[in-house]
Amino acid sequence: MNLPNEVKVKEVGPRDGLQNEKEHVSTVEKIEWINQLSETGLSYVEITSFVHPKWIPQLGDAVDVAKRINRKEGVTYAALVPNEKGLERALEADIDEVSIFMSASEAHNRKNINKSISETYPVLSPVVQTAKEEGKTVRAYVSTAFGCPYDGNVEVDQVLSVCQRLFEMGIDECSIGDTIGVANPLQVEQVLTSLSQHFSKDQLALHFHNTRGTALANVLTALQLGFTTFDSSLGGLGGCPYAKGASGNLATDDLLYMLEEMGIHTGIDLHKLLKSGEWIQGVVDRPLPSHHMQLVRSGGIHA
Amino acid sequence: MNLPNEVKVKEVGPRDGLQNEKEHVSTVEKIEWINQLSETGLSYVEITSFVHPKWIPQLGDAVDVAKRINRKEGVTYAALVPNEKGLERALEADIDEVSIFMSASEAHNRKNINKSISETYPVLSPVVQTAKEEGKTVRAYVSTAFGCPYDGNVEVDQVLSVCQRLFEMGIDECSIGDTIGVANPLQVEQVLTSLSQHFSKDQLALHFHNTRGTALANVLTALQLGFTTFDSSLGGLGGCPYAKGASGNLATDDLLYMLEEMGIHTGIDLHKLLKSGEWIQGVVDRPLPSHHMQLVRSGGIHA
Repeated sequence: MNLPNEVKVKEVGPRDGLQNEKEHVSTVEKIEWINQLSETGLSYVEITSFVHPKWIPQLGDAVDVAKRINRKEGVTYAALVPNEKGLERALEADIDEVSIFMSASEAHNRKNINKSISETYPVLSPVVQTAKEEGKTVRAYVSTAFGCPYDGNVEVDQVLSVCQRLFEMGIDECSIGDTIGVANPLQVEQVLTSLSQHFSKDQLALHFHNTRGTALANVLTALQLGFTTFDSSLGGLGGCPYAKGASGNLATDDLLYMLEEMGIHTGIDLHKLLKSGEWIQGVVDRPLPSHHMQLVRSGGIHA
Repeated sequence: MNLPNEVKVKEVGPRDGLQNEKEHVSTVEKIEWINQLSETGLSYVEITSFVHPKWIPQLGDAVDVAKRINRKEGVTYAALVPNEKGLERALEADIDEVSIFMSASEAHNRKNINKSISETYPVLSPVVQTAKEEGKTVRAYVSTAFGCPYDGNVEVDQVLSVCQRLFEMGIDECSIGDTIGVANPLQVEQVLTSLSQHFSKDQLALHFHNTRGTALANVLTALQLGFTTFDSSLGGLGGCPYAKGASGNLATDDLLYMLEEMGIHTGIDLHKLLKSGEWIQGVVDRPLPSHHMQLVRSGGIHA
């Protein structure tokens, strides 16, 4: 089996996880959690979102969080930024990396950011330009790359075209998202083979959801194709935005287990991660869905 | 990606699922469930166990269940048989296929059947012989093939040696079990590559548990190596025998989704399967852990 020696895991729980949580999490608790994550060996944490608090009130304390966390050397602290106004706040908070976002499918893009795909580019372009001028790296999320809850199938060419426009703007990395967790390994192979013809593998990250249980099989496929950057959320925090109670984000702990057992180095300590998972589980006050958190709760393993 | 066109899914829920359920399920309910499963397109259902009711009281009605279900043409109805006494009852109930079982690791074999591995062969050998004489096919489960809860690592040679002895006895198929759900794709590749040097791929089945979320990634690896028979339990019924509340058996519904989405034919209707999953979930009165049952409960998809 052809596998990379090393993989970069990007923890998105404090943003992608908490923005989908109903339970109120205080600013102090968010800071404490991010500080814990910084000590697990993770080299990347997406800490919050600068989307207007009207849309995501849960993360309305973004500036405060970003300013008050301990910045550990070697860890990149990223945040979601929707537009120039959001970027202003993100720069004020001195985040390391700016994450912009849009969808590969028209319907999801419109539902999510109230614009067509072509109307979205002029909003994102100055964000990328200014962020780069300010010395920040920029990542872009391309959602619904493997299927859309409204449009159904999404053509590879659509994904390709969106990625191309984003790279032309100057982004450093593009994270290809299976937003509703419908992707299967064969499709992952097809989409990634196509994208690899246009972009270098280290410019692309994979953001899988485990809604139908296929996330790790999809990761395995991407690994075999030489991709080495994966997004995940500790404990699977966040759930599925389209079906409350269903599993959403791929869990960092489950991902880490598979990688490390296959001898792929991540630099992350699973034990510390599970301890931190137990802690945030207590804060959000619901059982986190990852398989490892289930095992911890049942006493099958110790955090 | 090199994938088979067709896969055989062996449903073990009524045996491997229900034997681990605490909730009492009546004989009539078991019969109803097996009859439902027969109508989903499944060609194989393991319906019960002829282990002495002292050990598995939940399945003490094995003869009754086996005699009273509707036998659908084209469906193989199998049952677990521990010894000659169990075989007598299984033959009385006229089951189609006999499943014997033992472990690849000494400690698990001893805990599970109170005998060393070498003491187990003389118990199983006459079961296989008599079953074959009676015109039955025989399958053997080899548990803890990827790791043991007591011994830890299990050498491939141990697995190989146990399989060899069982095939020498005359079994038709050997199901290689990841009893505690620790297997990773690289290990699956190593074990299966080794076993393929001695046995034909259609003599082997894979029985993965999803305890750490890796089951479908392991299935994918086995598929790519040309293996085409997989055990699973509808809804993930059964849980992990070593950690109450943790996920256990790979879920038939999750397996089916991945296979069918990759264009691999199973002959099984996912819709009918989910309907039946909802039904048995009501009977055992706890939320079943599979990703698809989570989606059904949350309204993300309809059963």
